[in-house]
Amino acid sequence: MLMSAHAPLDALENNAEFVARHIGPAPEDEAAMLSVIGAASRRALIETLVPASIARSAPMQLPAPLTEAQALAELKAIAGKNQCLKSFIGQGYHGTLTPGVILRNILENPAWYTAYTPYQAEISQGRMEALVNFQTLVTDLTGMAVANASMLDEATSAAEAMTLAARVGKSKSETFFVADDVLPQSLEVIRTRAKPLGITVVVGPAEQAGQQECFAALVQYPGVTGRVRALQPLADAVHAKGGLLIVAADLLALTLMQAPAEQGADIALGNTQRFGMPMGAGGPHAAYLACKDEFKRSLPGRLVGVSVDAHGAPAYRLALQTREQHIRREKATSNICTAQVLPAVVASMYAVYHGPDGLKRIARRVASYTAILAAGLKQLGATLAHEEAFDTLEVKSAGQTEAILATARAAGMNLRKASDASVGITLDETTTRADLLAIWALFAHGNSLPTFDQFEAGVAPLVPAALARSSAFLTHPVFNAHHSETEMLRYIRKLSDKDLALDRSMIPLGSCTMKLNATSEMIPITWPEFANIHPFAPADQLAGYALLNEQLCAWLAQATGYAGISLQPNAGSQGEYAGLLAIQAWHASRGEAHRRICLIPESAHGTNPASAMMVGMQVVVVKCDANGSVDLADLKAKCEKHAADLAAIMITYPSTYGVFEPQVKALCEMVHSFGGRVYVDGANMNAMVGVAAPGQFGGDVSHLNLHKTFCIPHGGGGPGVGPVCVVEDLVPFLPGHGTAGQQRLGGVGAVSAAPLGNAAVLPISWMYVRMMGAEGLQAATETAILSANYVAARLSGHYDIHFSGSKDGIKGGGVAHECILDLRPLKDSSGISAEDVAKRLIDYGFHAPTLSFPVAGTLMVEPTESEPKAELDRFCDAMIAIREEIRQVEAGTLPREDNPLKNAPHTAEQLVKTEWTHGYSREAAAYPLASLRQGKYWSPVGRVDNVWGDRNLFCSCIPVSELEA
Amino acid sequence: MLMSAHAPLDALENNAEFVARHIGPAPEDEAAMLSVIGAASRRALIETLVPASIARSAPMQLPAPLTEAQALAELKAIAGKNQCLKSFIGQGYHGTLTPGVILRNILENPAWYTAYTPYQAEISQGRMEALVNFQTLVTDLTGMAVANASMLDEATSAAEAMTLAARVGKSKSETFFVADDVLPQSLEVIRTRAKPLGITVVVGPAEQAGQQECFAALVQYPGVTGRVRALQPLADAVHAKGGLLIVAADLLALTLMQAPAEQGADIALGNTQRFGMPMGAGGPHAAYLACKDEFKRSLPGRLVGVSVDAHGAPAYRLALQTREQHIRREKATSNICTAQVLPAVVASMYAVYHGPDGLKRIARRVASYTAILAAGLKQLGATLAHEEAFDTLEVKSAGQTEAILATARAAGMNLRKASDASVGITLDETTTRADLLAIWALFAHGNSLPTFDQFEAGVAPLVPAALARSSAFLTHPVFNAHHSETEMLRYIRKLSDKDLALDRSMIPLGSCTMKLNATSEMIPITWPEFANIHPFAPADQLAGYALLNEQLCAWLAQATGYAGISLQPNAGSQGEYAGLLAIQAWHASRGEAHRRICLIPESAHGTNPASAMMVGMQVVVVKCDANGSVDLADLKAKCEKHAADLAAIMITYPSTYGVFEPQVKALCEMVHSFGGRVYVDGANMNAMVGVAAPGQFGGDVSHLNLHKTFCIPHGGGGPGVGPVCVVEDLVPFLPGHGTAGQQRLGGVGAVSAAPLGNAAVLPISWMYVRMMGAEGLQAATETAILSANYVAARLSGHYDIHFSGSKDGIKGGGVAHECILDLRPLKDSSGISAEDVAKRLIDYGFHAPTLSFPVAGTLMVEPTESEPKAELDRFCDAMIAIREEIRQVEAGTLPREDNPLKNAPHTAEQLVKTEWTHGYSREAAAYPLASLRQGKYWSPVGRVDNVWGDRNLFCSCIPVSELEA
Repeated sequence: MLMSAHAPLDALENNAEFVARHIGPAPEDEAAMLSVIGAASRRALIETLVPASIARSAPMQLPAPLTEAQALAELKAIAGKNQCLKSFIGQGYHGTLTPGVILRNILENPAWYTAYTPYQAEISQGRMEALVNFQTLVTDLTGMAVANASMLDEATSAAEAMTLAARVGKSKSETFFVADDVLPQSLEVIRTRAKPLGITVVVGPAEQAGQQECFAALVQYPGVTGRVRALQPLADAVHAKGGLLIVAADLLALTLMQAPAEQGADIALGNTQRFGMPMGAGGPHAAYLACKDEFKRSLPGRLVGVSVDAHGAPAYRLALQTREQHIRREKATSNICTAQVLPAVVASMYAVYHGPDGLKRIARRVASYTAILAAGLKQLGATLAHEEAFDTLEVKSAGQTEAILATARAAGMNLRKASDASVGITLDETTTRADLLAIWALFAHGNSLPTFDQFEAGVAPLVPAALARSSAFLTHPVFNAHHSETEMLRYIRKLSDKDLALDRSMIPLGSCTMKLNATSEMIPITWPEFANIHPFAPADQLAGYALLNEQLCAWLAQATGYAGISLQPNAGSQGEYAGLLAIQAWHASRGEAHRRICLIPESAHGTNPASAMMVGMQVVVVKCDANGSVDLADLKAKCEKHAADLAAIMITYPSTYGVFEPQVKALCEMVHSFGGRVYVDGANMNAMVGVAAPGQFGGDVSHLNLHKTFCIPHGGGGPGVGPVCVVEDLVPFLPGHGTAGQQRLGGVGAVSAAPLGNAAVLPISWMYVRMMGAEGLQAATETAILSANYVAARLSGHYDIHFSGSKDGIKGGGVAHECILDLRPLKDSSGISAEDVAKRLIDYGFHAPTLSFPVAGTLMVEPTESEPKAELDRFCDAMIAIREEIRQVEAGTLPREDNPLKNAPHTAEQLVKTEWTHGYSREAAAYPLASLRQGKYWSPVGRVDNVWGDRNLFCSCIPVSELEA
Repeated sequence: MLMSAHAPLDALENNAEFVARHIGPAPEDEAAMLSVIGAASRRALIETLVPASIARSAPMQLPAPLTEAQALAELKAIAGKNQCLKSFIGQGYHGTLTPGVILRNILENPAWYTAYTPYQAEISQGRMEALVNFQTLVTDLTGMAVANASMLDEATSAAEAMTLAARVGKSKSETFFVADDVLPQSLEVIRTRAKPLGITVVVGPAEQAGQQECFAALVQYPGVTGRVRALQPLADAVHAKGGLLIVAADLLALTLMQAPAEQGADIALGNTQRFGMPMGAGGPHAAYLACKDEFKRSLPGRLVGVSVDAHGAPAYRLALQTREQHIRREKATSNICTAQVLPAVVASMYAVYHGPDGLKRIARRVASYTAILAAGLKQLGATLAHEEAFDTLEVKSAGQTEAILATARAAGMNLRKASDASVGITLDETTTRADLLAIWALFAHGNSLPTFDQFEAGVAPLVPAALARSSAFLTHPVFNAHHSETEMLRYIRKLSDKDLALDRSMIPLGSCTMKLNATSEMIPITWPEFANIHPFAPADQLAGYALLNEQLCAWLAQATGYAGISLQPNAGSQGEYAGLLAIQAWHASRGEAHRRICLIPESAHGTNPASAMMVGMQVVVVKCDANGSVDLADLKAKCEKHAADLAAIMITYPSTYGVFEPQVKALCEMVHSFGGRVYVDGANMNAMVGVAAPGQFGGDVSHLNLHKTFCIPHGGGGPGVGPVCVVEDLVPFLPGHGTAGQQRLGGVGAVSAAPLGNAAVLPISWMYVRMMGAEGLQAATETAILSANYVAARLSGHYDIHFSGSKDGIKGGGVAHECILDLRPLKDSSGISAEDVAKRLIDYGFHAPTLSFPVAGTLMVEPTESEPKAELDRFCDAMIAIREEIRQVEAGTLPREDNPLKNAPHTAEQLVKTEWTHGYSREAAAYPLASLRQGKYWSPVGRVDNVWGDRNLFCSCIPVSELEA
């Protein structure tokens, strides 16, 4: 007699296995959570909270979920459709060798990739040190005074440089000159950005810079053709006309060539991709932007600076935050939020590991190989378009351009079609002697190939002697002490140990959706088939990416209810920009270009008005009621007032207050009735997938944040992906990409350097959807809402839950996927601020919730579906214990100015000091909950003084003398 | 005019780039180090230290070094020669799915793989918790009382079980019964091991167990054929004859089937490979060995137990150390040192992640698929050899065995040739419906295949109902709380954060060579071409491994000067055993089997006498002089006395005291002159590669430790690889492997389950040699010696350097690659012991040097070539600061029983207590050096009480009640 059968086959096969790995609370936890909330079932809770008017009528149509292994196998087959030829295309993307120690311990290490943007300075000291190294790398090599902590790509960096110059320059000209050997994708994004701002883009030979008036001129150094030009004459000419010189420069070339600032440039920008980040079909990579000291307060993007902590020790924090778009709103001049922190960390570590001598050696090898290639080509009778070069040659093709390109492809190589009469060849650190022989063979016409004997003793690079760099760079010890792998490994670990990321605890950041970034989602991004491919390789070689794009867009369309999607925007801000561009272009296509009024509720994230300004719209603010919902009466009044010029309304749903506003459908209908289009910010999409779809309840456009809802890790502040999603009639107005031969009817142009933006991280979201399936995704959404309501319910007796839905019977009142704790009453009663609570949470081992957004003096908590119940409870226990501490301050048991909250975070160093003068014990400071004794995170610094840092702005590596002080 | 040429091409190409990544001190550091030592150059120092009589006359002949990228590409091509067919071979190796979170965060994470064996309990709490989970997994599933922390492979575990039974059993029989369906490789190793011990191995049908007298019987559960048998009748029969029943059991099967202990078994063993470790052509995997409580003090291998720390908190430590061979020496009954810690951690985490329900689901799926396969085969008219099965069927082949196997191979599948008349088919968790269809097709003869419709509702496994498991297992919360990936990730990080490994600081362990385990060396081991292949796949499918083996053996022969090498031994102890077997078989082949005297110096590592005993040799101890060198006069006397029976001498070179004994050549000649062979323990090979070769200066046999000299990471205590190397006339006596059809003339047999032992980690050593080249390896050796002498020189004014060479002008006296600090005088003057210093080093952020080996009361420091000078200085600074602390005790400034040394390590929890009663400050305890304030490692527990733990032996997961207490 045999054992009896246990279960149906599909239960044993468990194809949806990943759903239970992704969702934190176990099925048995759900009942306990529902009982605290006071809801009968998860479904009942959702039906109570989500307005019936917007609830999906049909489930998403997605393929049935696969197991992790099956999904990886399916994606591997898609990856296999890419053909990774050896790339000599250049054009801003180069082969590079990611040092193994950096690959494994940063790019593939959750301690780095799951970290959040370093808004909480104390728990972000490690990655901020890496970013200061990045900034120092950029300022040292460009010679500029200040560099930010990275830009999204070289093209958007060029566009931001243009607008920076427009802001800070003294010229009245509205003309922007672009040299004709600037990267074509940069020119394309510049054209997109310039148009709504009324800037005229003039393109001409670099030598013509300054010949006509312009507020700034952009040149490439070396040019896309490879040509190397002296910058000083250009700077002089442009300056003479009152303009600024902007130089897009290759950092590797700068190790051998005079820095832009040494030749009079005012702004420098470029890409750091070749510092260890794979090409990845175009991204993510860290671009850079640097400028003279006098422009620093106008520099867009994030800037890490050095300040001091409460005990006077040096400490890093984000500097000059008041420049940022979330504060300046419609006065902002850029909408950038996310940077490319993870790629910037990789690039900085590449420099740390190689050091100045190593970088020079790599550059000299590339330059010498280029000189050898040139010499060999000449021996074979080929003609070069220019004699001076760093890594790129342009070879005349004598009418054989297409034939040469085809022969090269057949031999496994991609060259660049420089023109109908020439091909471009760019070398990099991966180039070998065999590669040179293979290239020579293309031009040999049967003659015997050159040999290397003649070159063994050394070859002079083709860099003009007059431009040879004499200034030192990367002299700081950090770039000169970590050249053995052992040292490097320990440095990486030391930095990551200072930080708190998802691999150690919950990061309950409202509006940021810090959910699981599963390993199986991360594994494919470093597969060579996805990593080692040039964004402008011939389309047939990118077939794997094309299929990935097609499938992911189809799935996201199911999730959002929209008709068309572009994955090109490489951050939410860019998706938002692209969405507004689409609306604007649609109005223009109907002869209504005058419709430029953009309604924005006062509760909106600051990026919304900043994006509206960038497309030339005029922001009109709409009031909100006491619950944070849009005031429909005011909306109606504004619509009527601006009826003729109404372009759009931008709303966030659920609202930035974390509420499912019941009237959203009515709102959309009202705006539509006045001829406006509805932009639904997708930041809070994690509360909707499978439950409601903005494209179905009235939205015309949304952007998504794949780095929120769809599992791309935050990487410490980037990379992000911000797809733009539109209804049917707006599809023609999605971004295109001329450089990739990808035109759209609407002619909006490109918004990112690469056709698929941050292509290399798209497999993450693909894997997530493929492993979850429709039911799994809906369960994730519902659990995210359940968990937020559980937190609200547990904390509701202790804190005021702000803007809750006040649903009967729901403890905590009923929120969407996040809840706002109002600490303003406590500030009045105890003097304890929301910031004090945020910093005290560090002592409890937590990253703070979102601080003072959307309402000053509050904390916004978003647990996401991935946090297990045990972690939610640990967090609630901490918050409740903190409330007790506040109560002691209220009662006078603890002094108002000397208590564990005001002094938080406590460092081990302070706690171990012989002298202890506080009115509470060391144990109360360090171990307010017994569970902390099982493994405590120690803040590496005390509370960081933001103001001191902004007054004493310093954004480079800390001098050793100061560290030792 | 162009820039001038910089350097010869090969300097720019820098093919030896890895050498500078591997070697810690930079070229500019070397001069500073030499100056402290008082040597003119590195070469001059080596010539002073290494006896001219043994210096290599010619450099090693190795291929020129490749860069990391080049070496990876070359190895990838070799890997590509392996053909990874889908394996249905079974026979102890199964397809498995390594959860991504475990793959990335354990197997590929240096925090886990660079850790050392947990001898220093305080800094090893994380991995010891994982090992206790492993032990609990084994005891829960087998029902046994005690399990050790892993064995090298199932075959050696079976052999150890045999000798354990021989030790603890009461029977006088010298017969060991082995069922004929035991894994053939287990039988082969058992035969090898039994022979020198005089044990008679009898093989027969399992049902015959107990029919004749035996001291123990071994049966497989299920058998290799797949047949499932009740164990109780066999146990009863064997017990009735006074023997013990040993059961080799599949842990996955045990989730559904009654445990061996529940059916009367006395000892259980098996492999945990299918718990997430890839097959890897045979290893590394963690085998297990478990027994009844009454045998626990005789259990070989490592055992982790629970004890208490100085503050009474529960803490883990290695239990019952007095059983181990390094203490019991020739009284030892096993020579096992290394376990398979890293694979054991993986297996335990697999169980933690899946939990009991998940494991049962996996097992039920496998069992149901097996039942479906059987049903389908029967529908197709095939005949099965047995009806009861878990995962394996034996199908009658009707004379078509080879044809079926060939057709299967053509379809991408390997089946097992069970006999001439049948094939074996084993399923696992990776089996799919498509696989079942493909297998059916092999037996369909053109008939249509069965469909799954009939099975969807559920299928009863073929496990007999009478054997169905009813007892619970893995009920501890650790196996029931980490089932979401977020929880699992945090658990893994939490454990690793408790431990100190090479990714955080130097591990200056004398004789253990804790050098860099470079990322590029580690990357290939998880390539599917190396990971997913069965050790007994057809030889042509293993061509990549064959080539790897051939090249690595050739290179190691260059390094050692030997003629023949076998990589089969999967630990140093096994290599040593194989080496002695070769000597013994050689003597026997000459009619001198009576030569069984093995001379061993008193300074030898305890493994040497233990190994000698295992091959049936008789150990005779040779005296050492005051400097720790072999006393040649005593040696001569012993040689003369035992001239007729002299088999061998076992020496370590440089000696275990870290000295290049000048007379080694004379010693070898003397032993040879008496007809003995010279065994040179290769543990200290890191002081010789490229400088001296044991096979050239008189050694006949050596084993190497690839996990020391050749960069395989220690993994927290395994995997290791211990190749055995021999001179020409001993080559026929290297281990063979009958199961793989690999016979050697000498007929020594197999010493490991798999022909290439821990094959999957061999790429690590291959990469190391390939990237270093001959010059690089020699530079590494010389730098290792330089660094040891630097440490000796820096510490020589502060500590007595024991057994130095007393070389004139060399500060510190001149040592080899390690130096011994004699702390016995300090014990007399201050009461501070070497252990106190070891524990105090934890407060300074260091793993202690080797404690009390080879001399009690000393610390032996081996810095290796990979430690940067800055780290050597940090260590020396710590040792000097500790010496100052001791001086304060000597001076009476600090009390003898209450000082920072006696109380070390200090936990944060103790330091933060309100009450501080010690005569030194908290700062003095925590931050004795200012540099510690830049990031301190905190010991998770206070000093662990070893004795308490042994008196209160407990080797399973700590009950939650106790943790919360």
